[in-house]
Amino acid sequence: MPDVSPTKWHLAHTSWFFETFVLTPHADGFRRFDENYGYLFNSYYEAVGDRWPRLARGLLSRPSLDQILAYRAHVDHALGAFIADAPDDVWDRASGLIELGLHHEQQHQELILMDIKHVLSVSPLNPAYDPSMRPGPHLQSKLDWARLPGGLLDIGHDGNGFAFDNEGPRHKVWLDPFGIAARPASCGDFLAFIEDGGYHRPELWLSDGWAAVQQNGWDAPLYWREPHSSGAREIFTLAGLRPINPAEPVCHVSFFEADAFARWSGKRLPTEAEWETAACAGELGQTGEVWEWTASAYGPYPRYRPPPGAVGEYNGKFMSGQMVLRGGCAATPDDHIRTTYRNFFPPTARWAFSGFRLADDA
Amino acid sequence: MPDVSPTKWHLAHTSWFFETFVLTPHADGFRRFDENYGYLFNSYYEAVGDRWPRLARGLLSRPSLDQILAYRAHVDHALGAFIADAPDDVWDRASGLIELGLHHEQQHQELILMDIKHVLSVSPLNPAYDPSMRPGPHLQSKLDWARLPGGLLDIGHDGNGFAFDNEGPRHKVWLDPFGIAARPASCGDFLAFIEDGGYHRPELWLSDGWAAVQQNGWDAPLYWREPHSSGAREIFTLAGLRPINPAEPVCHVSFFEADAFARWSGKRLPTEAEWETAACAGELGQTGEVWEWTASAYGPYPRYRPPPGAVGEYNGKFMSGQMVLRGGCAATPDDHIRTTYRNFFPPTARWAFSGFRLADDA
Amino acid sequence: MPDVSPTKWHLAHTSWFFETFVLTPHADGFRRFDENYGYLFNSYYEAVGDRWPRLARGLLSRPSLDQILAYRAHVDHALGAFIADAPDDVWDRASGLIELGLHHEQQHQELILMDIKHVLSVSPLNPAYDPSMRPGPHLQSKLDWARLPGGLLDIGHDGNGFAFDNEGPRHKVWLDPFGIAARPASCGDFLAFIEDGGYHRPELWLSDGWAAVQQNGWDAPLYWREPHSSGAREIFTLAGLRPINPAEPVCHVSFFEADAFARWSGKRLPTEAEWETAACAGELGQTGEVWEWTASAYGPYPRYRPPPGAVGEYNGKFMSGQMVLRGGCAATPDDHIRTTYRNFFPPTARWAFSGFRLADDA
Amino acid sequence: MPDVSPTKWHLAHTSWFFETFVLTPHADGFRRFDENYGYLFNSYYEAVGDRWPRLARGLLSRPSLDQILAYRAHVDHALGAFIADAPDDVWDRASGLIELGLHHEQQHQELILMDIKHVLSVSPLNPAYDPSMRPGPHLQSKLDWARLPGGLLDIGHDGNGFAFDNEGPRHKVWLDPFGIAARPASCGDFLAFIEDGGYHRPELWLSDGWAAVQQNGWDAPLYWREPHSSGAREIFTLAGLRPINPAEPVCHVSFFEADAFARWSGKRLPTEAEWETAACAGELGQTGEVWEWTASAYGPYPRYRPPPGAVGEYNGKFMSGQMVLRGGCAATPDDHIRTTYRNFFPPTARWAFSGFRLADDA
Repeated sequence: MPDVSPTKWHLAHTSWFFETFVLTPHADGFRRFDENYGYLFNSYYEAVGDRWPRLARGLLSRPSLDQILAYRAHVDHALGAFIADAPDDVWDRASGLIELGLHHEQQHQELILMDIKHVLSVSPLNPAYDPSMRPGPHLQSKLDWARLPGGLLDIGHDGNGFAFDNEGPRHKVWLDPFGIAARPASCGDFLAFIEDGGYHRPELWLSDGWAAVQQNGWDAPLYWREPHSSGAREIFTLAGLRPINPAEPVCHVSFFEADAFARWSGKRLPTEAEWETAACAGELGQTGEVWEWTASAYGPYPRYRPPPGAVGEYNGKFMSGQMVLRGGCAATPDDHIRTTYRNFFPPTARWAFSGFRLADDA
Repeated sequence: MPDVSPTKWHLAHTSWFFETFVLTPHADGFRRFDENYGYLFNSYYEAVGDRWPRLARGLLSRPSLDQILAYRAHVDHALGAFIADAPDDVWDRASGLIELGLHHEQQHQELILMDIKHVLSVSPLNPAYDPSMRPGPHLQSKLDWARLPGGLLDIGHDGNGFAFDNEGPRHKVWLDPFGIAARPASCGDFLAFIEDGGYHRPELWLSDGWAAVQQNGWDAPLYWREPHSSGAREIFTLAGLRPINPAEPVCHVSFFEADAFARWSGKRLPTEAEWETAACAGELGQTGEVWEWTASAYGPYPRYRPPPGAVGEYNGKFMSGQMVLRGGCAATPDDHIRTTYRNFFPPTARWAFSGFRLADDA
Repeated sequence: MPDVSPTKWHLAHTSWFFETFVLTPHADGFRRFDENYGYLFNSYYEAVGDRWPRLARGLLSRPSLDQILAYRAHVDHALGAFIADAPDDVWDRASGLIELGLHHEQQHQELILMDIKHVLSVSPLNPAYDPSMRPGPHLQSKLDWARLPGGLLDIGHDGNGFAFDNEGPRHKVWLDPFGIAARPASCGDFLAFIEDGGYHRPELWLSDGWAAVQQNGWDAPLYWREPHSSGAREIFTLAGLRPINPAEPVCHVSFFEADAFARWSGKRLPTEAEWETAACAGELGQTGEVWEWTASAYGPYPRYRPPPGAVGEYNGKFMSGQMVLRGGCAATPDDHIRTTYRNFFPPTARWAFSGFRLADDA
Repeated sequence: MPDVSPTKWHLAHTSWFFETFVLTPHADGFRRFDENYGYLFNSYYEAVGDRWPRLARGLLSRPSLDQILAYRAHVDHALGAFIADAPDDVWDRASGLIELGLHHEQQHQELILMDIKHVLSVSPLNPAYDPSMRPGPHLQSKLDWARLPGGLLDIGHDGNGFAFDNEGPRHKVWLDPFGIAARPASCGDFLAFIEDGGYHRPELWLSDGWAAVQQNGWDAPLYWREPHSSGAREIFTLAGLRPINPAEPVCHVSFFEADAFARWSGKRLPTEAEWETAACAGELGQTGEVWEWTASAYGPYPRYRPPPGAVGEYNGKFMSGQMVLRGGCAATPDDHIRTTYRNFFPPTARWAFSGFRLADDA
């Protein structure tokens, strides 16, 4: 899977971020741990030089894990000293970058679990990452709906507290009245879609989605194993294989699968503006277990401008070919979740902890 | 080029549309010309059966052109008789499909020229399709701007007269005040971008766009030939090779190139709502020579529902992974152009007659 | 199919051969028909310049067939005049090249039929090239064997009369006593292999052959259609679809299929030295309908040297990755067949008229 | 690099061989370590079941190295007990398989070093496997030639002592008189080829070889680094980067590069029969540092039959698409080298320790 990186790469990359954007430009007398690491652990910042190809990350037998832990210790130590000792003017320039680096590291905490799950899942041994991990919440069986009046509203981050650049500027949108489900779609809901032939009915799918079904042989969410002859199904989790639970949120579906399910239901996915409006109004139930696909293509908000320099590459340059997800998942650090947060993945991606909830017109 | 079809395929496909959606279901006693043609000339309608793969269209040595012309005559004759003789209740059901078929054929009139141009362009002989074709309009050298106040506006087709399903429903949008250029970008404008290293500066490009530049070796619009040692450039047209004209609209650029040019200019592309608003206000100059890329991902308008049955596949199922273009081009039939018309192509497509104009914030 | 070229390409390429190797260097005052044709119609001669990519041959809408026929007339006329008028010393240098050009054109006469058959075969209309073409010979049902004593023998062309460079030098080989079948394998023989699960038993296949079976989904020779529910099979031929005839030679099999069949039979394929020895001894029955795969990788005979210059690229540079076929087929001009003739194709090729016969150890 | 496997895979696979072919069928009461290991560590034996795909070996994060070492200990212990206690009749059936398993493990000892070298080589850190490893032998600068008379000779293993099945049966071949170089080609020799434009002259290459040069951008042997601006070159070795030594044997060249060098030299590669004849006559100097490509496609000797059962897949099924190498290399265990030994790789392979020596006609 080309999108998956080894854990040790994540460990090094998050330290590289502090080294490159905070310590090297701002900390007097700081010495880079190894000049080659810039090349190895840059993920996609064109402005700071060439990069080791993403596909080749799995080939990196060197540096060893020990060397990478030493690298992290080197950066952590220097960062601690910098925080303690930075002159005020330097601090003013660097503190925002440190905050960004912390949020960046939180993102990678989630990515590490996504990637570990994928790597373990392809082993025929079905190894558990942590057998003690508990399954997700039980959803209500009945599907309740919230009704919202729409109108001329404001969405986006207002600038108080930390947010990524792509969450603003706050701006007006017009929304027609809409309904939104009080819980995400469940595994039981999705089983009904499968049993009704959902993966074999082209009229339910976007054209690119149907092509993805054919090309990849999709017939269930990622990590769902073929049903036993008895019809019972198992699902691969970070706690190993376990029987599927119809009451938990369906997870590891692509945007295309979420969209096809919605069409099959006679409903649709919410736009990100609808999602944010409902979340701010306290009308969204049982969020935080799975990211929720929206109907919105990921693009810039009106008057959005990326910040200057390399950190401007953080979000803005990915604004094509991806769909927005909202909410947060069980692997997302709690204080990393915001109602304005815009996560994004290509519409075929399934290795993120991605589910969805339904919406409809009033 | 997998997107290009032979002319004889277009000729057969447009007749197939009338045969399949009008004559077979509605015309008493109609006999299909050849049962195999349904398979061969279906472009993408899943609901009416299997299809000959798009990539294999170029392999179709049979049926011959003579057989396809006989097929068209058969369908035209039957359609003429049907229009003359259809009972009123049948006519009520079928007349909308005939109108759709005529607009469908107009779309293919443009596609045929797009495809012929591409096929001829790859021949080292640089053959002309029609040496008498005249070059496009001269644009003003100076770039004037229109200023629009925005506000809470309505866009989309209001249902009077023909429109494709994706042009409606008419709905409200909020627009901030914006500016829009009074003419499309010209070849001369684009030459300045090239000469300033535009194709070699990753900071100007979306991530997927930069990947497309690298992968395809783009260094100029499609059909621009390598400059001579003197620096003079030629461009391949339907009239054959001719010297580039800096005053004509730049054409055959991808969305990514349009977007990079806009970023280099310190501007941006207009959204489709901005474009339509400016067009309705009479503020758009020199449209109709090239389709104009917008900043909008192609998606459904609020409350959009595709019509039931196979014709519902006409537009709706392509609503992912594409960008909207507005306007019309020199190859578009005049009465096919509407201010609400939403053309769409993937952001890497360059063989359509696609240019762009700039926009900015007030 | 990347190996297939349009008929008009073959027509131009064979004239290009005479133009490039005979007329341009040897005929005083000869003028090339079009300077671009050298680029378009060179198949693989590196020494005479760049080439139009093989994969793009199907895209060549220009030059038209009329232009290519005019090209052939131009070259034919000039060649006729050259033959009539060439001074003796020029003739001495050029006559061998003319003879080579004629044999080259005979090869393409067969290739044209191979390619037309493939192009027609992919049409769902199953069009016939010539409905009057008659099926191949009936083979004897019983499989007789010839026994040959082997020993220290000479094989290869002795230099009397025309031969391609790769047929010589004549040289010694040692052969153990061997047996060789008195007829090629038949469709009936091959049906028994299929019905015994031949395409599903990896132990019968070379590793690369088994990979080709999996990758391409082979379950019968090329042009055999899926059996009807009755079990009856049809086969696509240049005369259109017709019922399979168990008594005719099996054709359009790859080397890997021939080899797997032989292993299944408890036999093997003959080496090319065995084949040639048996042919010279008059011990080979019913040759000339299908080319016969041998067990020999295509390589140079001892002391082989390609001729100097571009014509040295005719055969020698293909001496890796291919297997030798011997004999000739129904599409081979009669006077083009020789016992020393070495045809060659990659072991996966199936669009040539390729069958095989069995051999064994004494 | 899809041909490269992780070291821990090799460790497990060689134990799997003993478990599968010796202990499971022959050792009373033997219990497999883990039922899944058969699937994970089968390399290519179709007859013993499905296999983990080769390309996915690098993804195997589990079982861990500790588990694999426990697996090896389990198998080693059981094998020791079996050797000590096997009844005579069981021993008669199993002892040949144990011997085969030992030679198999010796082959993997070499493969492990080949694979480690490749994995380390792609790291920009240029890590050394063992900095204390010493460079290869110094070749004589002058190129001496041995002359051999040829004639009707016997080659192949005579059945005394261990040999792989593909080394026999011993059989007669006719050889014309030939010459063979008294040492392999050196890095200095190969530098002269490069400096004479060898990688840019298509007339020196087989057609498939030239395609490989273009496709892979070859311009020097594998592990040769781009020359410094001074012209000095470094080479990546298991001891890390070091300056190239013109007097050592050239290594990590493909068959195509060896063949092109030979053509450039006005010479050729020896056939495997010539190589073996010269080796048996004591006429080959400085063997054992690099495997030597021959001009012979890898195929079965006359009357060769693979042994029955799964071990019959050891060699025979690879007899297409590969070329024979003779000799042995610095990483080959000493007692694994035989004059009849037939190593084989595809003609594009470069990660083996492969060089060559020249031959010519008398």
